[in-house]
Amino acid sequence: MSQQGFILWFTGLSGAGKSTLARAVRHELTTRGLRVEVLDGDEIRATLSRGLGFSREDRNEKVRRIGFVARLLARNGVASIVAAISPYRTGREEVRSAAETPFVEVFVDCPRDEVIRRDTRGLYEKALRGELSDVTGISSPYEPPFSPELRVMTASESVQESNRAILRWLERENLVPQC
Amino acid sequence: MSQQGFILWFTGLSGAGKSTLARAVRHELTTRGLRVEVLDGDEIRATLSRGLGFSREDRNEKVRRIGFVARLLARNGVASIVAAISPYRTGREEVRSAAETPFVEVFVDCPRDEVIRRDTRGLYEKALRGELSDVTGISSPYEPPFSPELRVMTASESVQESNRAILRWLERENLVPQC
Repeated sequence: MSQQGFILWFTGLSGAGKSTLARAVRHELTTRGLRVEVLDGDEIRATLSRGLGFSREDRNEKVRRIGFVARLLARNGVASIVAAISPYRTGREEVRSAAETPFVEVFVDCPRDEVIRRDTRGLYEKALRGELSDVTGISSPYEPPFSPELRVMTASESVQESNRAILRWLERENLVPQC
Repeated sequence: MSQQGFILWFTGLSGAGKSTLARAVRHELTTRGLRVEVLDGDEIRATLSRGLGFSREDRNEKVRRIGFVARLLARNGVASIVAAISPYRTGREEVRSAAETPFVEVFVDCPRDEVIRRDTRGLYEKALRGELSDVTGISSPYEPPFSPELRVMTASESVQESNRAILRWLERENLVPQC
């Protein structure tokens, strides 16, 4: 079976669990024999998005570049998994429109209180103290998707549960073979 | 046979024939059933390299970004063809070092007089009149590769001849099936 590429796009607040889920799904897809790439917003800061800041325009430019790479990979049969805050609807919709393969938007939904409690990277504390501007959810907007293909609730579900829900969805859409 | 990805990197002056050759090779590889992407320096100006200028640093940054994308595609089995002036050795060598698949550097060699005569984009006339700075070969340096895998001489060879020479090389290296 020739692999059908697609873009699996995780959007949500910092600390919501996007990267963790991206890695979990990658593991599962790799096990099933698919070619997979993860494009992680944090990791591509040194390459694709070097020099970009946190204005609305710069954040959308970052999303556009990740989307460009994900599109090229997906049209060559790769399962392209993106983990990026991607806070603006217009930015995400632009990528969706340009995609030449299925675009699966996954809203990694975690309440603000919970990501502040986790504060994995220490960003929220600084933002709440007013020491850091441009932190999404505190001092910069986050626009949740109106109708994502999938929504996972990472405050109440385990990583395994969210992962399973995503895999079931991909199987149903015939994007991933049943194991 | 599972396709082995590789990066075929065309470097040379503007007007030397990089894009033309990239398209010719793409056509041939596609005909042989390979998955191919062409990353053209001119075309990615609106996406990957938006905002970058013509300083040494910016030009190497552009090469780095194209190299990043070519690397991801190639490690997923795609024949990644790059057409980019990529004037500095350090920039090209950085991409070569990071590559996880064969990196095939093709020096598209065309004398300065000939690209000035062609002046496909009207750049050289302006540069020679002093109206345009940062034109590679006139007002900005071009560092030819010391030992490229391939060198094609586009002033004395036809596109078909250069194309054939490249294909023969790729076949010999078992990167491309014989037709």
